[in-house]
Amino acid sequence: MKQFMDRNFLLESGTAEKLYFDHAAKMPIIDYHCHLSPKEIAEDKTYTNITEVWLYGDHYKWRAMRSCGVDEKYITGDGSDYEKFRAWCRIMPRLAGNPLYHWSHLELRRYFDCDLIICEENCDKIWQLTSEKLCSGTISARRLIEGSNVKLLCTTDDPADDLAYHKEIAQSGFSVRVLPAWRPDKSMNIERKDFCEYLEKLGKANGGLKIQTLDNLQDALLRAMDRFEALGCRTADHGIDQYVPFEKPHSFQADQILKKAIASGGYDLTDDEVALFKTQMMRFFCTEYKKRGWIMQCHFGVLRNPNKTMFEKLGPDTGYDMIYGDSRVNNMALLLNYLEENGILPRTILYSINPGENAAIGTLCGSFCRGDGSGQPTVTQGSAWWFNDNIDGMYAQLQSYANLAGLGNFMGMLTDSRSFLSYPRHEYFRRILCNLLGTWVEDGRLPYDEKTLGGIVEDICFNNTNRYFNFGV
Amino acid sequence: MKQFMDRNFLLESGTAEKLYFDHAAKMPIIDYHCHLSPKEIAEDKTYTNITEVWLYGDHYKWRAMRSCGVDEKYITGDGSDYEKFRAWCRIMPRLAGNPLYHWSHLELRRYFDCDLIICEENCDKIWQLTSEKLCSGTISARRLIEGSNVKLLCTTDDPADDLAYHKEIAQSGFSVRVLPAWRPDKSMNIERKDFCEYLEKLGKANGGLKIQTLDNLQDALLRAMDRFEALGCRTADHGIDQYVPFEKPHSFQADQILKKAIASGGYDLTDDEVALFKTQMMRFFCTEYKKRGWIMQCHFGVLRNPNKTMFEKLGPDTGYDMIYGDSRVNNMALLLNYLEENGILPRTILYSINPGENAAIGTLCGSFCRGDGSGQPTVTQGSAWWFNDNIDGMYAQLQSYANLAGLGNFMGMLTDSRSFLSYPRHEYFRRILCNLLGTWVEDGRLPYDEKTLGGIVEDICFNNTNRYFNFGV
Amino acid sequence: MKQFMDRNFLLESGTAEKLYFDHAAKMPIIDYHCHLSPKEIAEDKTYTNITEVWLYGDHYKWRAMRSCGVDEKYITGDGSDYEKFRAWCRIMPRLAGNPLYHWSHLELRRYFDCDLIICEENCDKIWQLTSEKLCSGTISARRLIEGSNVKLLCTTDDPADDLAYHKEIAQSGFSVRVLPAWRPDKSMNIERKDFCEYLEKLGKANGGLKIQTLDNLQDALLRAMDRFEALGCRTADHGIDQYVPFEKPHSFQADQILKKAIASGGYDLTDDEVALFKTQMMRFFCTEYKKRGWIMQCHFGVLRNPNKTMFEKLGPDTGYDMIYGDSRVNNMALLLNYLEENGILPRTILYSINPGENAAIGTLCGSFCRGDGSGQPTVTQGSAWWFNDNIDGMYAQLQSYANLAGLGNFMGMLTDSRSFLSYPRHEYFRRILCNLLGTWVEDGRLPYDEKTLGGIVEDICFNNTNRYFNFGV
Repeated sequence: MKQFMDRNFLLESGTAEKLYFDHAAKMPIIDYHCHLSPKEIAEDKTYTNITEVWLYGDHYKWRAMRSCGVDEKYITGDGSDYEKFRAWCRIMPRLAGNPLYHWSHLELRRYFDCDLIICEENCDKIWQLTSEKLCSGTISARRLIEGSNVKLLCTTDDPADDLAYHKEIAQSGFSVRVLPAWRPDKSMNIERKDFCEYLEKLGKANGGLKIQTLDNLQDALLRAMDRFEALGCRTADHGIDQYVPFEKPHSFQADQILKKAIASGGYDLTDDEVALFKTQMMRFFCTEYKKRGWIMQCHFGVLRNPNKTMFEKLGPDTGYDMIYGDSRVNNMALLLNYLEENGILPRTILYSINPGENAAIGTLCGSFCRGDGSGQPTVTQGSAWWFNDNIDGMYAQLQSYANLAGLGNFMGMLTDSRSFLSYPRHEYFRRILCNLLGTWVEDGRLPYDEKTLGGIVEDICFNNTNRYFNFGV
Repeated sequence: MKQFMDRNFLLESGTAEKLYFDHAAKMPIIDYHCHLSPKEIAEDKTYTNITEVWLYGDHYKWRAMRSCGVDEKYITGDGSDYEKFRAWCRIMPRLAGNPLYHWSHLELRRYFDCDLIICEENCDKIWQLTSEKLCSGTISARRLIEGSNVKLLCTTDDPADDLAYHKEIAQSGFSVRVLPAWRPDKSMNIERKDFCEYLEKLGKANGGLKIQTLDNLQDALLRAMDRFEALGCRTADHGIDQYVPFEKPHSFQADQILKKAIASGGYDLTDDEVALFKTQMMRFFCTEYKKRGWIMQCHFGVLRNPNKTMFEKLGPDTGYDMIYGDSRVNNMALLLNYLEENGILPRTILYSINPGENAAIGTLCGSFCRGDGSGQPTVTQGSAWWFNDNIDGMYAQLQSYANLAGLGNFMGMLTDSRSFLSYPRHEYFRRILCNLLGTWVEDGRLPYDEKTLGGIVEDICFNNTNRYFNFGV
Repeated sequence: MKQFMDRNFLLESGTAEKLYFDHAAKMPIIDYHCHLSPKEIAEDKTYTNITEVWLYGDHYKWRAMRSCGVDEKYITGDGSDYEKFRAWCRIMPRLAGNPLYHWSHLELRRYFDCDLIICEENCDKIWQLTSEKLCSGTISARRLIEGSNVKLLCTTDDPADDLAYHKEIAQSGFSVRVLPAWRPDKSMNIERKDFCEYLEKLGKANGGLKIQTLDNLQDALLRAMDRFEALGCRTADHGIDQYVPFEKPHSFQADQILKKAIASGGYDLTDDEVALFKTQMMRFFCTEYKKRGWIMQCHFGVLRNPNKTMFEKLGPDTGYDMIYGDSRVNNMALLLNYLEENGILPRTILYSINPGENAAIGTLCGSFCRGDGSGQPTVTQGSAWWFNDNIDGMYAQLQSYANLAGLGNFMGMLTDSRSFLSYPRHEYFRRILCNLLGTWVEDGRLPYDEKTLGGIVEDICFNNTNRYFNFGV
């Protein structure tokens, strides 16, 4: 019996250990998609207790607690920080096999030197120990990032954002590059109630424009893109919910639709109008991405807020989203084809949230790879995302990627997290990656050649991404 | 090489053995969804040969035999009992890896003390041995149930049923609680040919009502629910075939639709009318379930009787059903949302028949869990069902459940069977559960703590269900 | 650590070895679906270098190269043969875990006695060694087939084909039976631009008919079927792309639709008209298949050429196809039901390209198996196909088949390949099959009985197919 989470955690062979410790572990981290707060980095946020770090903003944990029937008082309610942590500890044993079980224990070990098992019995000890550590002045946003060997990270930012914190961080001499990433969903979501309000904000933040036409909108966005680029932005991220809209774009019509939305407050649009407008915007964005060499990331296939009752109470991103049941691969193919036909398909990473979609997405990516001599894929599948971000999901994604593309081209892990304590997810991923390769070697399915295999591991952990995004780390 | 089906069958580590023998094996069984005949329990049915037990009503076996090209004469035809058993033995080796292979051998071992391998060579020996045992008077419906350490079971009953056998069983002093479960599909299936005929039967059985309006229908159903409740009913089961209907309900319209169906014999309804009527009925039912604290079980995603030729010949439930190709998760989300918005979402168990839907269903369940302080999930995924009820399907369901919810909350196994010999399926499931946990421990993915892990095993095998349904065993 | 690809490659237990070496390895091959060129067999094609064999026509490899960002010049462009091979060697390490990695190394070992690892460093050695071997006169189309212990193979042929090469091969005394297989897609694809042109060709090749009506078309096809049958044809293959059309057929309407297509050049048809015409054709074909005892194979679920830009440049079958996102199982059920109701459902093999569809297809097959006393399934799932044809895909298909049907009935492997070097894929499959059974035995999930298990292996490798297609080998 292996000790729980020992040195060789998830490494089941000598080859896996060799690859992990001599190759994966030493590579720095590029966290090219996360939801960290630039403000908190700029201000070098500190904490007074573990609940602030773990439970204030983590909807993964909230969801798990609700699955265990914990009282909302101890989830997002007015329970005390200690009570909330106690509730978390109490349910932990029931989360056996859940990634939160591993992530939480890894974080405790890596950042607090604490190898206690999280459970109600150990609650007080862990509370005290982590409180002491957090108040000792050795743990802060920046120290956590630096201490995790991160070289570069991309936050997720709105075109209306003034990026003041990014400037502040850049000027502060922080050793880690903190780049903005372009997330323009709000400027496309013409069907939302707050679209017109958003346009106002967007115009104000970008040259004080008043947005009344498609030209105005694109003008504002171009100015924003320039601002993002000036701060080193290299990537755009699109959160395309449940359905991937595709309707052949047409700038005159899109302009009419926008005007109609502005005039009516956004309410009288048909589905086709929404789709046309969105596709027109994708056309506009991708033209720019291609020109600027930005990488497009697409997160799709989520049905957000199906539970309207809880949405009214708690708002978005509170643990009430789900996997959309139907495949959107076919429409994504139409979109990519349109972009390619118009010469504006940028390098793209597609993320699947449904493990059942791995193969379809893998073949979709392959269908849009050019023989371009770049040595890297044009369109490629990203790491196992969200509900899929667990041991089984990662093995499934890696195996599918290996079967359908070339594993050596994979862009590796990202945290997608709001927490400064999430970097052990890179460790977790790297152990899984090394174990997969190690198992293949041990089983005679892959020749043992440390230079080659170590090179693949280092590429996936760091080099591929650095090169693909042209980060120049 | 392990001996076939030895003491440690499916248990691949010492931890797995420990968990199974010291925790799982000793727990009694609550079989909260099955299709046993109350009549056969009341009459304490006996058998004269193994064909009566195994092949008279088991469409799983019929299907397997047809896959092997056995003559229908020896499946549902006029072959002799011996000939049918011989045909079953003959194909058994070809079913290597099929759950029927394991179930059949387990049943032979557990109920007949016979560890012969089922094959044509051993046919006569097994026939004789089982015949002797069956005729010895030691095997009967009740003895089989009691001998399997069952404490409570729920049959599946129609609102038009008089539940006479349930009363008889309750009064007979049988040590096992045999509760009716509410299966009102026929009262909703307004699109079926025999709907009007059914209404008559339903009215007669419940106060002699003549059902001409929605009020009449609901009145009859309320009376039936009271009758069910008086006999201890704690759960409703809905067999929602292929598509989950959802159309915002409206009682006036539903009443009109019902009247139209009655007037026309049910034939002129549009799909929207059917959906509206069904959603209205779900609204009615769930209001009651919530009030009465009944657990709703939903079995969905089956395309029944796609082969009309065989349906005409043999009728329903004869081994001619299939997995519906499209996901119905999105519509189920609409339905659950409607119920929650109206404050009438009961505790619900959703079953998936398609292994590809595990993740989507898991996230759907999480999206409808309330932080209600009950210590249990509001909506949760049930065990791997029907075509999914096999070793691979069970591991996949368990791993998905662990990844997306908390494994410790899982409601465990049920037989869903028509046979009194099916209880070894609980053993089969329990071995798999213990092996999964044991493997995690052995691999260092979970700390070894017998008290905690044993507790989780006991909860999943028995306690969770007892508490969730409020059975009070 | 096992040596890479040693004698026991993919065999992880003694039982697996026993089953493979004593049972699987000795069975000859029936390759009942491939895309070999009859012309090349007739002419006994030879090669001068490894690029001709490996890279001239293999869109699997082209696709992999593009995923690695290789310049199209070295894929399908005007790079030299040596440069192309060098590019292939260079990316090989990045394909760790990809079936192409194994297939390529297996082919090198089995046909060139070369156990070098494919990589840029070994490029020149392998180039030289394979060139020598290819030029030595010991390697040719026929020698490769015979040397692989193939007894019979079915090519894939169009009804307009004169089958001259098949006649030539048959008369040449070649020891292997090379049968045509009937692939009538072009005669059904009424929505394609070149449909009318094709009709002309079809008529000319079959009695010089001028096709102007449905009767003419069917007449031409009947003549073609007779020609195919005269040369031993036993199977039809339908490449049903993305969607399985189903619209209740009607010969008068189908005739009108055909006339309309001919008059207009095929352009004014509605989707319903296309579906009706195609279903009518399926009705016609299946009537004949049933009568002639031909096996129908259906390859469905592919979205072909989603990337129009590359399609314009390179044409079809160049590595730019993908898995269609939506399930087509429901429509396939409608089609099979129609055929069964009309008494014209032939024995059928359904192939899934999407690993997520295994279970649904498995249950679809079971729903159309007759208890016909033939000892074989009526409708059955074929081996893991194309994007699914890899170790993971094969295990998943085998396990699903075992769970839902009877593994012993499975029709085993086929190459589906354009290359004479592809036969090691049968070895690859057989090792996987034996390892699966071996693992079950070692784990105590299956009793060890060499006669029974060896028989199952031999059946799956050879006997089942020989009997199902009535090849009489």
